[in-house]
Amino acid sequence: MYIILVYDIYTETKQGRSRLPKIMKKCREYLHHTQKSVFEGEISEAKLLALKKDVENIINKKEDYVVIYIIENINNIYRENIGIDFDPTDNIL
Amino acid sequence: MYIILVYDIYTETKQGRSRLPKIMKKCREYLHHTQKSVFEGEISEAKLLALKKDVENIINKKEDYVVIYIIENINNIYRENIGIDFDPTDNIL
Repeated sequence: MYIILVYDIYTETKQGRSRLPKIMKKCREYLHHTQKSVFEGEISEAKLLALKKDVENIINKKEDYVVIYIIENINNIYRENIGIDFDPTDNIL
Repeated sequence: MYIILVYDIYTETKQGRSRLPKIMKKCREYLHHTQKSVFEGEISEAKLLALKKDVENIINKKEDYVVIYIIENINNIYRENIGIDFDPTDNIL
């Protein structure tokens, strides 16, 4: 399956600011870092479960949010961007 | 078609901070506001073209970015979130 993950971390506090690099690093272990708070990539069911567990251990559920879009068929999705381009070596979609 | 729109506006400058409410308001005209920088919803081809034009007129292409994921078949995508819940009246996905 293909997933798109977007997070928004509450950075008004010191703890929040310390969560940001942690979650970025963790998401990079599983997915391609498309843009600041956007990650995407193909992932297995088992890896998705592990990613969700890791994310839950990092974020503060009362302040932060993570949204995961799960797309069963990768041929059914494509991406367009306006503004700053992505990493030029990126050729996922 | 179903789209997911994520933006990241450069808010280090006064001009950037003034763009943020404009693009939020504009995206709300076309899509459901899922979370801070995330919008989603069904949209026609014509409306998507109009939305992209409006977005291009608002953002600074050298500082901001907007990524649009286009999913042809809405039955092929579902959403999960971790942390702060969405607007309870939301029953889009």
